[in-house]
Amino acid sequence: MVKSIRERQHATFDVEKLTHILDGGPEKTRRRREIESMVFSDPDFKEEDPNFLSRSERYDQAVKKSAQMILKLREYGIADPDEIYCYKNCVHPDRPEPLDLHLGMFLPTLLNQATPEQMDRFFMPAWNLEIIGTYAQTEMGHGTHLRGLETTATYDPATQEFVLNSPTISSIKWWPGGLGKTSNHAIVLAQLYTQGNFYGLHAFIVPIRDMDTHIPLPGIVVGDIGPKFGFNEVDNGYLKLENVRIPRDNMLMKYAKVEPDGTYLKPPSAKLTYGTMVFIRSMIVGESARALSKSCTIAIRYSSVRHQSEIRPGDPEPQILDYQAQQYKLFPLLAMAYAFSFVGQYMRRTYNRISGDITQGDFSELPELHALSAGLKAFTTWATNSAIEVCRMSCGGHGYSRSSGLPDIYVEFTPTCTYEGENTVMMLQTARYLLKSYRQAKAGQQLSGIVSYLNEPKHQRVQPQPVAARPTVVDINDLASLVEVYKQRAAILVDLAAKSIEQELQQRKSQEDAWNNSAIDLVRASDAHCHYVVVKLFTDKLVEVGDTAIHSVMSSLALLYALHGITKNSGDFLQAGLLNVPQVLQISARIKELLSQLRPNAVALVDAFDIHDKKLNSVLGRYDGNVYENLFEWARRSPLNSTEVHESFHKYLKPLRSKL
Amino acid sequence: MVKSIRERQHATFDVEKLTHILDGGPEKTRRRREIESMVFSDPDFKEEDPNFLSRSERYDQAVKKSAQMILKLREYGIADPDEIYCYKNCVHPDRPEPLDLHLGMFLPTLLNQATPEQMDRFFMPAWNLEIIGTYAQTEMGHGTHLRGLETTATYDPATQEFVLNSPTISSIKWWPGGLGKTSNHAIVLAQLYTQGNFYGLHAFIVPIRDMDTHIPLPGIVVGDIGPKFGFNEVDNGYLKLENVRIPRDNMLMKYAKVEPDGTYLKPPSAKLTYGTMVFIRSMIVGESARALSKSCTIAIRYSSVRHQSEIRPGDPEPQILDYQAQQYKLFPLLAMAYAFSFVGQYMRRTYNRISGDITQGDFSELPELHALSAGLKAFTTWATNSAIEVCRMSCGGHGYSRSSGLPDIYVEFTPTCTYEGENTVMMLQTARYLLKSYRQAKAGQQLSGIVSYLNEPKHQRVQPQPVAARPTVVDINDLASLVEVYKQRAAILVDLAAKSIEQELQQRKSQEDAWNNSAIDLVRASDAHCHYVVVKLFTDKLVEVGDTAIHSVMSSLALLYALHGITKNSGDFLQAGLLNVPQVLQISARIKELLSQLRPNAVALVDAFDIHDKKLNSVLGRYDGNVYENLFEWARRSPLNSTEVHESFHKYLKPLRSKL
Repeated sequence: MVKSIRERQHATFDVEKLTHILDGGPEKTRRRREIESMVFSDPDFKEEDPNFLSRSERYDQAVKKSAQMILKLREYGIADPDEIYCYKNCVHPDRPEPLDLHLGMFLPTLLNQATPEQMDRFFMPAWNLEIIGTYAQTEMGHGTHLRGLETTATYDPATQEFVLNSPTISSIKWWPGGLGKTSNHAIVLAQLYTQGNFYGLHAFIVPIRDMDTHIPLPGIVVGDIGPKFGFNEVDNGYLKLENVRIPRDNMLMKYAKVEPDGTYLKPPSAKLTYGTMVFIRSMIVGESARALSKSCTIAIRYSSVRHQSEIRPGDPEPQILDYQAQQYKLFPLLAMAYAFSFVGQYMRRTYNRISGDITQGDFSELPELHALSAGLKAFTTWATNSAIEVCRMSCGGHGYSRSSGLPDIYVEFTPTCTYEGENTVMMLQTARYLLKSYRQAKAGQQLSGIVSYLNEPKHQRVQPQPVAARPTVVDINDLASLVEVYKQRAAILVDLAAKSIEQELQQRKSQEDAWNNSAIDLVRASDAHCHYVVVKLFTDKLVEVGDTAIHSVMSSLALLYALHGITKNSGDFLQAGLLNVPQVLQISARIKELLSQLRPNAVALVDAFDIHDKKLNSVLGRYDGNVYENLFEWARRSPLNSTEVHESFHKYLKPLRSKL
Repeated sequence: MVKSIRERQHATFDVEKLTHILDGGPEKTRRRREIESMVFSDPDFKEEDPNFLSRSERYDQAVKKSAQMILKLREYGIADPDEIYCYKNCVHPDRPEPLDLHLGMFLPTLLNQATPEQMDRFFMPAWNLEIIGTYAQTEMGHGTHLRGLETTATYDPATQEFVLNSPTISSIKWWPGGLGKTSNHAIVLAQLYTQGNFYGLHAFIVPIRDMDTHIPLPGIVVGDIGPKFGFNEVDNGYLKLENVRIPRDNMLMKYAKVEPDGTYLKPPSAKLTYGTMVFIRSMIVGESARALSKSCTIAIRYSSVRHQSEIRPGDPEPQILDYQAQQYKLFPLLAMAYAFSFVGQYMRRTYNRISGDITQGDFSELPELHALSAGLKAFTTWATNSAIEVCRMSCGGHGYSRSSGLPDIYVEFTPTCTYEGENTVMMLQTARYLLKSYRQAKAGQQLSGIVSYLNEPKHQRVQPQPVAARPTVVDINDLASLVEVYKQRAAILVDLAAKSIEQELQQRKSQEDAWNNSAIDLVRASDAHCHYVVVKLFTDKLVEVGDTAIHSVMSSLALLYALHGITKNSGDFLQAGLLNVPQVLQISARIKELLSQLRPNAVALVDAFDIHDKKLNSVLGRYDGNVYENLFEWARRSPLNSTEVHESFHKYLKPLRSKL
């Protein structure tokens, strides 16, 4: 399409080189494209648009493709976890699928917590998909708070069995993916009782369906939890256990043990499951970046194709991307997509480095990474969640059509705000680390890592004060200077939260009530800390970018990200005297300049994400810009058009005439 | 349930009396409940949960119920528009339905724009559902900008017919509800050509399907536009016209006319369609209030049932509504629900008053109402749109289940941000009125109505300046004082937007480019204006509330609404010197107090919305609080559980074993 070509001719930088930076090098780009082409050219993975299918058909199509996927991964010898992940995300374009928990939780948990004897019994059958498993922790009435879980496993030495029970309705296991229909085994987390004593949560392998007929076993009530906002391909399930007996050696006993007579042996350390959570949360930061990149790709490409209204009367309708209001909606999100991409890279690298340290027995950096991954998971998913909807609504009515791809991106992404640690809980976890560090700093301890700014003495003296009373030396065009004000804002808000807790304590509140009564301030402090980290990491990334043209456009994006964040939180910066009023006005003017400056590069900047049309799955976001022809073609294929006359006409509407 | 009773015992006011205030009097409450009970006890309206049905089944069920509804409305003699609306919203619990455009647009357009002869031909058949019609304006490539529409109607005097055409793909009519499958007629908006001249957009009655067989007529390509985010009951359609000939007297000719020889006669006035838009936008404000009330009802009731984590170690898990972070999410939204309810009442009353004036020939207040309805439509729908999702996510994982009702509320509500005037476009329309008023005020003209504050001289001199430089006399506990600062903020932001346009003009930009380059400031000014109006109307409403207990709790809500709005936009207030830093800190502390203060009344405050369980359609929001039992029961009924073993096991998973 001529229009798309013209848009792309305006780019001031080499799109391919930027793609390499995002992938982590040209070789990574090459291999990713190779895998994409393997899947997308494979007729076994051809699919019907899920939006045209019923829930049961969607599940059916997903199981079919997952089975094919397992076969092909073995056939092609794809074994690197990153490559498997990439392959899977092409087979099921960024959609969760019924075997996710088997591959991502059941097998890894066996690897980590099974004894050698248990590995022999369970691992190969699971590897070969005879055993299909899931991981059943969450209960209907209990989420993140593990001590609240009600499922019990009581050891019976007479038969050397555990007896598992769901004592209440609220104790029914709820949500595990693949539990409803797909799995024949589950790793069940249950409160252990033996010899009349209570030992807390442990993991048990529970067969739930007959290996041959797939019919639920006696005492097992299992099924699908019903339709959800999204996740239509996944049979999230429920599991009610009624005096279900399993052999003693179905408890995962690599660490804790129950001996035949019922004697309990403690695990050597409790820190070992810590790492998985940190890993998953770090990965979610990358998922935020991907969901946001896709949304921006769709909205920005469509905004360059769509013409609407007029700026000057009588002129042809302009591209909607030429409206300042549209640029102001989308370009800060584009900047955010780049910011989160680089933060995702950082989290991944840091996780790998620190897990290297951990295997060497060095746990020193784990608490900081734990706090950072919790906060950034919340910060990036909340921001992305809203941003996807801004992108969708920026496409006008067509964004509301399933053909835009945006409703699907939203419903598949939004659970990240809730799972793997609800976002507010995550922010409070980060706050706990910040407050602990703050107190250590106050006690004269030298902090290391990203919180070391809490040592800088001036912040500890900062009191919120009138703007005029403080000299401000911020250069709003200098990223280093902006990183500094974000840092100071974080320091001040940590201080404010600490003061709130102190005040509560002075009113003779307990530590716990003081904490709860300061939750608003604590979340705000965490948010400011995470915001600082993102601005800092985006700025740090620029140092790595050698190509001048790319460096220039990335600097504009980083500046837009930082300045836009200031205008959206200008109260914080003004209140703390970090910026003065003329500067806030300058920032508004500078943002407008940056929008104009980025306009010619906008389409090229989303092209650089290099998201294959088949992954984007959006009529509006197509690379070639042929939106309207394809929208019409898509609509005509939709199931309600399979007959010219819907039966309801003959059933209800025509008969109505004789009755009125 | 004991828990629910205990929650409700804490209320400090009479719930029933507050319900009367919301309904507009005890008689209105009584009649609403009467209609609700008529529908909900009627076995003909029993429905299967739409979430368990395919798209085609949902459409089928909706057509069935709509046909029943037409019969019963006639049978019971329900004819008052408000009562029809109430009845319809029980039959299709707050869901759009296939006959919406027939009833809401086709019939009214005939009434307004048909000649007596056309009324004879079309009205009674349409009233009796022989003719089923829709209103086809929007095209695939063209939305709000009417001059951009491409469909043509060319008069052929030889046959005395209009020839209608969709000359391009982008000109295909797209979106009209009921067009895809239900309607046999459409009022088509098309550009009129006669005697070689162009006369702009006019309305034509176009038969599209055979009255007997319902098969599309020659030259008509019609169908459903395919699945959307929501609106699954509605067959939003497309319509491509290929040399479709209709008789001359199928043009709606009450105002403009084409004579048999093709002579065009102008309509007497163009202002007459203005009112409908204003009416619909005013109604949408009320819809925002209802969607938000439902969402708050679900989230707040569930938060009083759900127990999670611990505040003090060892204590039982507290109700999640006892967490400050949860209160901070939900109570400001509860306050907003009340604010928008009262604004909705005001808009309705004002519309009725002004349309009385209009029928008397007095158009003087219409421009202000037009500007107000545009801005408030955008302001309330944007705020509600985000708020629904906050409510959903505040319910944790279960909010993501369709059983919560929240996904449906969201997908049915979110189009209000786009239709009947895209929100950013609406904000800019309001800004146009504000800027015009601002210039009139500057020219010494005395303004009337809600914008008269632009006359107050001090605002015209206000320059953004350091906080310390201005004395502040705001009492943060006094609503009148808060209304005043909101007003001043609006005045200052209108001033800022005007200055931005002036600056652009000084740089020799055209008026139009100056406007476009100030869009960010203009939207911000409109937003502040609307925010002021909402705070003002909430405060005004309190005067009407005689009951002391209700007055007290409503005052707390109004204060929370106003103060929360300040903290979320504290930059504006600080920047303008309307508040100083200590006040902003006081406001944060005051908000915490208000949260605690409102906690005992929270459930009673949502009870007062008096939303019937069958309208709420939410397992989490049930009045009796029996969440978990019903969640389990709902899940078991879902279609994927109709068989114990899904066929995909035998088709794909079991065969896989032999291949690995």
